[in-house]
Amino acid sequence: MKDQFYTHIESLQDSITTAIEELDGVAKFEEDIWKRDEGGGGKTRIIENGAVFEKGGVNISAVHGELPEVLRKQFKVDEGNFFACGLSLVLHPKNPFVPTVHANWRYFEMYNSQGEIVTQWFGGGQDLTPYYLVNEDAIHFHTVCKNVCDSYSPDFYTTFKKNCDDYFWNTHRKEARGIGGLFFDYLKETNELTMQDRFDFVTAAGNSFLESYVPIVEKRKDLTYDNSHKNWQEIRRGRYVEFNLVHDRGTLFGLKTKGRIESILMSLPPIVQWKYNYHPDINSEEEKLIKVLTNPIDWV
Amino acid sequence: MKDQFYTHIESLQDSITTAIEELDGVAKFEEDIWKRDEGGGGKTRIIENGAVFEKGGVNISAVHGELPEVLRKQFKVDEGNFFACGLSLVLHPKNPFVPTVHANWRYFEMYNSQGEIVTQWFGGGQDLTPYYLVNEDAIHFHTVCKNVCDSYSPDFYTTFKKNCDDYFWNTHRKEARGIGGLFFDYLKETNELTMQDRFDFVTAAGNSFLESYVPIVEKRKDLTYDNSHKNWQEIRRGRYVEFNLVHDRGTLFGLKTKGRIESILMSLPPIVQWKYNYHPDINSEEEKLIKVLTNPIDWV
Repeated sequence: MKDQFYTHIESLQDSITTAIEELDGVAKFEEDIWKRDEGGGGKTRIIENGAVFEKGGVNISAVHGELPEVLRKQFKVDEGNFFACGLSLVLHPKNPFVPTVHANWRYFEMYNSQGEIVTQWFGGGQDLTPYYLVNEDAIHFHTVCKNVCDSYSPDFYTTFKKNCDDYFWNTHRKEARGIGGLFFDYLKETNELTMQDRFDFVTAAGNSFLESYVPIVEKRKDLTYDNSHKNWQEIRRGRYVEFNLVHDRGTLFGLKTKGRIESILMSLPPIVQWKYNYHPDINSEEEKLIKVLTNPIDWV
Repeated sequence: MKDQFYTHIESLQDSITTAIEELDGVAKFEEDIWKRDEGGGGKTRIIENGAVFEKGGVNISAVHGELPEVLRKQFKVDEGNFFACGLSLVLHPKNPFVPTVHANWRYFEMYNSQGEIVTQWFGGGQDLTPYYLVNEDAIHFHTVCKNVCDSYSPDFYTTFKKNCDDYFWNTHRKEARGIGGLFFDYLKETNELTMQDRFDFVTAAGNSFLESYVPIVEKRKDLTYDNSHKNWQEIRRGRYVEFNLVHDRGTLFGLKTKGRIESILMSLPPIVQWKYNYHPDINSEEEKLIKVLTNPIDWV
């Protein structure tokens, strides 16, 4: 399973970076290959200062070795080894009318002292963070998410959509990071579902990414904007940073387990503003976004 | 003691904001008075878009009520009430040759169910975060810190300087946030020192703030700088954000105990950049700073 999934994320990284470069038309991804002292490594691909994308990363990694202390505590085991691999991406567009997107699909195995698999699961999801809310775009993104879910189980979309709204809740701001999408974790074998079924779903989710995002970028990337739109985007990016550094389990896990810092923090936006106590004008487009973020709605 | 210390921070807030406004010459502090649902409140004073200060806050608060859950866990008590008051300040200058400064002086009391004081202490400190390192400025800041310490105990400076280097260590970056200063916490009554002695020291530390910082600002605020200096300042401000949101106990405590978010996050800089894997040129002024941050030195 681990080889099968790694082969999938390798080829997914290629197809996504190729499509994003075509969409950008100017910037190319730069690749950094890195090794982890304790076992494994990754391929980080970063795009910066593009025509469409101001900053972004599409990274894969496969790491293994002794369970780090935080995981031993979390899983209540004294010792053990693990293998984890996944693809993580974040794309921060230049144009404030194009949403930021984040996605991650990952696979985890834990072993006992005989090297046998004790437990294994998939996790991940994809979510959209607009600066200006276009209902049509939110509906498109969620429709692609729902379609991929519905091919596998009638419950998936409802469950994973709600997980996503819950997970990306910026507690201290009492608002969502974005308009959600899918979030799932600990997808294990059940009476109804084999690990191969789980694999099929998670790879289908990954393969649907370009369809969910690229049409939105194509429609919005050439819209005219001014400084006021850019300021708003940069202020909202501040909330993205707050979520990632204060609440995001993946980021904090990486920082605490000696992950490769630059690969983890590629998620942070290129230029960010914090203004004291900033509130958009009543009935503005900016306020319309806030209303939906403070009270997530069903898009499909 | 609580009234005595609150009177001190009220008057210190006035003297600091008056001096900073004079130094800026253009911007004025705006005041927000806020109340805490569970008891107490504060006076937040924010300066933005000044000639010298791009953003800053000099806030006081006095809060009381039932011990929040995080504190009950930390102090291993089932119930109890508390009182806490303090002054917190952060100033982010416009000119990259002027360092950012942070300071905080606070007092805490915890009560049993009869309303008697179970324990009480002072905490706080002041520290400097330069973007370009001028040895003379670092020596001046630390000399003022040392002088105020030496008037009270020959051990204070050595201990509180080391505490500061340890506390403001940005673990995941393996570097200090800045060049330090003083950091102290749980300053309680001892055989040698009464609470009045503690009060005298902490108020003297607060009263030394303007002497430690204003002369540095006066010397550097009119230096010429270009975009490359400003970019470096904005990238380094990213590390400031990372420290405050990932590691700073005060910030995380505030976010988790329903503090007033805008007063807590006034510490975040106005404009911040994150570039992927950015490293300054060998032997540049920027690299000189990094060398000292990764290996803190004794300034006096």
